[in-house]
Amino acid sequence: MKNNKIIFAKRPVGMPDNSCFEIIEDKIEKPNDGEVLLKTLYISVDPYIRGRMVERKSYIPPLQIGEVIASSGVAEVVESNTKLFKKGDYVTGRMNWEEYPIVNEKELRQIDPAIAPLQTHIGALGMTGLTAYFGIMDIGNPKPGETVVISGAAGAVGVVAGQIAKIMGCRVVGIAGSDEKAEYLVKELGFDAAINYKTAKDIREELKSACPDGIDIYFDNVGGAITDAALTLINDNARIPLCGQISHYNEPEPQSGPRLLGNVLIRAATIKGFLILQYASRFNEGIEKLAKWYKEGRIKAPETIVEGFENIPNAFIGLFTGSNLGKQIVKI
Amino acid sequence: MKNNKIIFAKRPVGMPDNSCFEIIEDKIEKPNDGEVLLKTLYISVDPYIRGRMVERKSYIPPLQIGEVIASSGVAEVVESNTKLFKKGDYVTGRMNWEEYPIVNEKELRQIDPAIAPLQTHIGALGMTGLTAYFGIMDIGNPKPGETVVISGAAGAVGVVAGQIAKIMGCRVVGIAGSDEKAEYLVKELGFDAAINYKTAKDIREELKSACPDGIDIYFDNVGGAITDAALTLINDNARIPLCGQISHYNEPEPQSGPRLLGNVLIRAATIKGFLILQYASRFNEGIEKLAKWYKEGRIKAPETIVEGFENIPNAFIGLFTGSNLGKQIVKI
Repeated sequence: MKNNKIIFAKRPVGMPDNSCFEIIEDKIEKPNDGEVLLKTLYISVDPYIRGRMVERKSYIPPLQIGEVIASSGVAEVVESNTKLFKKGDYVTGRMNWEEYPIVNEKELRQIDPAIAPLQTHIGALGMTGLTAYFGIMDIGNPKPGETVVISGAAGAVGVVAGQIAKIMGCRVVGIAGSDEKAEYLVKELGFDAAINYKTAKDIREELKSACPDGIDIYFDNVGGAITDAALTLINDNARIPLCGQISHYNEPEPQSGPRLLGNVLIRAATIKGFLILQYASRFNEGIEKLAKWYKEGRIKAPETIVEGFENIPNAFIGLFTGSNLGKQIVKI
Repeated sequence: MKNNKIIFAKRPVGMPDNSCFEIIEDKIEKPNDGEVLLKTLYISVDPYIRGRMVERKSYIPPLQIGEVIASSGVAEVVESNTKLFKKGDYVTGRMNWEEYPIVNEKELRQIDPAIAPLQTHIGALGMTGLTAYFGIMDIGNPKPGETVVISGAAGAVGVVAGQIAKIMGCRVVGIAGSDEKAEYLVKELGFDAAINYKTAKDIREELKSACPDGIDIYFDNVGGAITDAALTLINDNARIPLCGQISHYNEPEPQSGPRLLGNVLIRAATIKGFLILQYASRFNEGIEKLAKWYKEGRIKAPETIVEGFENIPNAFIGLFTGSNLGKQIVKI
């Protein structure tokens, strides 16, 4: 048996393509003390990995050429050298784009397939859901009746963030990249309104009419012109959890836009960039809440599942063209 | 005796000039129950008043044409119709650009001339000092050894903010608009470094060499290109108290600049616009601390004092050309 891995082959300039990745064949290793050998079942592809492809100081060190790409996934334990897990257990945690990774016990958490389908534990009930949860709850601090706008609303984090805001009693407006996605947000997920920014004549005007009482929380996944529009419509004491800036990730140079800090000032608003790892000590709280809402049917977990290990790079690239609705997952 | 007042005569487009103001002569009124008649001694002119000249929704309603301009000041009680103050008391609080205003007791606070010169109670020991105090302490949350950058550092709020950050054990770098100001910040106020942005060849490079360990707190009074530079140099978990955006106040249209929220995100930084009135319930705490530091000689209160009621508009306009070092005050 062989162990396929995907390594980082070339730094992209602009949009990444398949030449940035290379599948290499390796042998399957034995787990050392405290480690397990896993068989990967599902791999999560996430926009933040694009950030790691840039050589710069950041909260996670940049990827080096030749390095296996790290991600999160769901796997089955094939061989265990730790008391925490036994053969046949299902686990989630940080694992590489790799078929048979060796992972330290500290990186893994056992999952219960009775709660939700296996792959949902890397989506709405995993890091993605936690990102939405802490962004909305901790930074957004929503109050019933407030207006919450979510950009990238049909993306993995956006769909959960919007549903949590609905549970909190807010008016929720999503911004997404197709009519189909916008319709899904309203009809299937209960958003109060959704805007297709690609066909909007004037995104600010459409956002303004969807938010007659202004914006109290702007949960930002995208940046750029959508964020410019939202920042001009915020209310006093608005909160802006900054979760992603996907519209900028493939720009070789920073783009210009209107300077809007003056409005942030006169609105006494707060913009807060956050990284989910800052909330590590509260993950259990978040997972419990998400699982409870999921079981109650109050949170749905839309997923776009692609099959085949070799399709991981394409699934990743598709994140930047909006090919996914909800969480993008690759089934191995 | 007559009572001169300055009314708002014309909305400025761009930089305000004298035609935006008009001195009118009125009679002196009698105080009703709960009111006092004051003789104004010192008037504070502040950049935020420029914001009130624009017809828009904001935290303070916009000035209306013909309205007497409200400001803060120091005055002597001429006639009292309240038990809180008696004739001859020195008070500070909200009062108009007016020689003999009638003010409600709730708007006033008695001041002790033994603590500091009268006018300092509208500067380092008044709203200005409080703005610096809460911006640095509450939003900045400084830790010893951290690097604090202050823009508009030689302005009324900047000089106090920088000195508080020094008291907190930080490395403090000021950005100001002349060599004389920069020298003053370092030699007289103990800043670790100061940059004259007007002669800087590359503000980002100069800021970078003045902040070898990056920026932990960026206290922003100015916005624009200086803020762009600072935002590219922030450290993880940086805090950005947004106190003013004076470089934008006289722009008829919002200007463009690089979109920098991506860096705010990967640094997990917080930008927080704040208004001093949000801290009203904690003013006593702030005034006590500022007065203590002032008495101990740890905070100096540089002031630029212009004489003559008729010079209030010029003193105000001078704020935007940097004519003041420290607090701009008009002695009546």
